[in-house]
Amino acid sequence: MSKLLIVGTVAFDEIETPFGKTDKILGGAATYIGLSASHFNNVDSAIVSVIGGDFPQEYLDLLTDRNIDISGIEKVENGKTFFWSGRYHNDLNSRDTLDTQLNVLADFNPVVPQHFKNAEVVMLGNLHPNIQISVLDQMTKKPKLVVLDTMNFWMDCALDELKEVMKRIDVITINDEEARQLSGEYSLVKSAEIIHKMGPKYIVIKKGEHGALLFHNNQVFFAPALPLKEVFDPTGAGDTFAGGFAGYMAQQQTVSFHNMKNAVIYGSNLASFCVEKFGTQRMEQLSKDEVDTRLQQFKMLTQFDIELAE
Amino acid sequence: MSKLLIVGTVAFDEIETPFGKTDKILGGAATYIGLSASHFNNVDSAIVSVIGGDFPQEYLDLLTDRNIDISGIEKVENGKTFFWSGRYHNDLNSRDTLDTQLNVLADFNPVVPQHFKNAEVVMLGNLHPNIQISVLDQMTKKPKLVVLDTMNFWMDCALDELKEVMKRIDVITINDEEARQLSGEYSLVKSAEIIHKMGPKYIVIKKGEHGALLFHNNQVFFAPALPLKEVFDPTGAGDTFAGGFAGYMAQQQTVSFHNMKNAVIYGSNLASFCVEKFGTQRMEQLSKDEVDTRLQQFKMLTQFDIELAE
Repeated sequence: MSKLLIVGTVAFDEIETPFGKTDKILGGAATYIGLSASHFNNVDSAIVSVIGGDFPQEYLDLLTDRNIDISGIEKVENGKTFFWSGRYHNDLNSRDTLDTQLNVLADFNPVVPQHFKNAEVVMLGNLHPNIQISVLDQMTKKPKLVVLDTMNFWMDCALDELKEVMKRIDVITINDEEARQLSGEYSLVKSAEIIHKMGPKYIVIKKGEHGALLFHNNQVFFAPALPLKEVFDPTGAGDTFAGGFAGYMAQQQTVSFHNMKNAVIYGSNLASFCVEKFGTQRMEQLSKDEVDTRLQQFKMLTQFDIELAE
Repeated sequence: MSKLLIVGTVAFDEIETPFGKTDKILGGAATYIGLSASHFNNVDSAIVSVIGGDFPQEYLDLLTDRNIDISGIEKVENGKTFFWSGRYHNDLNSRDTLDTQLNVLADFNPVVPQHFKNAEVVMLGNLHPNIQISVLDQMTKKPKLVVLDTMNFWMDCALDELKEVMKRIDVITINDEEARQLSGEYSLVKSAEIIHKMGPKYIVIKKGEHGALLFHNNQVFFAPALPLKEVFDPTGAGDTFAGGFAGYMAQQQTVSFHNMKNAVIYGSNLASFCVEKFGTQRMEQLSKDEVDTRLQQFKMLTQFDIELAE
């Protein structure tokens, strides 16, 4: 058994897409990461987060049903849970944030449960870099692998703190526009080189429907997104990708580029399900057989066999 | 030996990118297709096109030096060669056309050389659909494979004619926006289904720096673009891709999805060189060793090995 510690939001989302509109539903980076990582055997996951008194027990049950340890989710009885609402444009590639209410997240002090302070893998979901640093400070044993997810918001308002946490991690996952912003370079190959110098040995650049790139020194690997007939709701796809990546790596004995290639394939695989229904719906029901079948589709999509002619 | 017949423009281009500006240089779809296809052994290529009296002999020599038959390139002594000029934006993903002078192309009647009327593979480069149809009408033997490249311009002004030629081809190569325009569907999976019903059994959707998708019935394959440190000039990349695709297929005995997967990899491979220098410069010097080395990079970029865990 290997331990995976996840820090991130557990939240309410209200989502509008060209296909419809939800009420307040279960959301949050740590929720998606946890649900995604729960598909790997021999991995014990725990979430460190904060919720308000308004957070329903059934959502917590949904996490514990997937064997996710929730003892690190602090409940502030007289507070309200973090809330985000957004509206996707017709192409589903861009969205407007309609409302963000930090609520209990504003004063969040993460507390890592005692029995997860020696976790082998730490997945730092998108949050203020100071919260991410605080989690790393609480670890009693150096993790085998620390994965950081972040976004442009922190580059705008907490760049120095972000640079600090970047020195202490192994893998960063960001999207293409964020990589360009962080590096000041348009070419993603050059971006990865510059970000590499900021700390992380492995750089994963997420390109949404255009797949994901993994960089390590002079090596590069590409995982496509599965071409889908319908994309229903992209919310959580990036976190689901990160959860699949971290979950797969937690399951492996060794940190290697070979294993990390598989990890980005698993991340893409799981993310391809996430977008098929609103919110976490699809991830809640997902079976091992479905994941395995889609893995075969990823092989068919990418594998070729060319003999070099004379 | 297998014969590949290429129809398309042989032209002058004037190109401006963030890295500089060219004079009038060699351009044209058939030029790029021909240079790309010339990298395959056991394939005899011929170009059907038209040029003016202003077209320099050295450009023609450049084609014959690569063993491309130019007897189907009509020279109109008192006419001027087709001219295009454009300026790329900073991201190199979009461009403005500054000038288009049809010149001798306005009255072009393609004449297929007698010894290429039995060509096994026909590559119909981007031109008016009526010219593409005229070439097919001149074939004395049904080709093993007909590949069509086209663009949004013909969808806007010659859609009926385009639909006619689409009924007579095997493979269509278009970019993602064009596939969406032609099908009226945003999802590329749905687009491919609809375009399939218009005639072509194989649909190649080019996504520029995001790679290319190959669809055939329920099968789909994806070839990434090689992540490059510098993209210097994207002009001709799509034609170079098509030339690599058609050249590889001309070299093969059989038309199959398996071979076509390799063909899109070769197309991506050759296109990755094209963009490294202005115009045709890079393609003129390209060696077999360089192509083979980059093929290994494509394997490293895409191939993975996952054993399904219990």
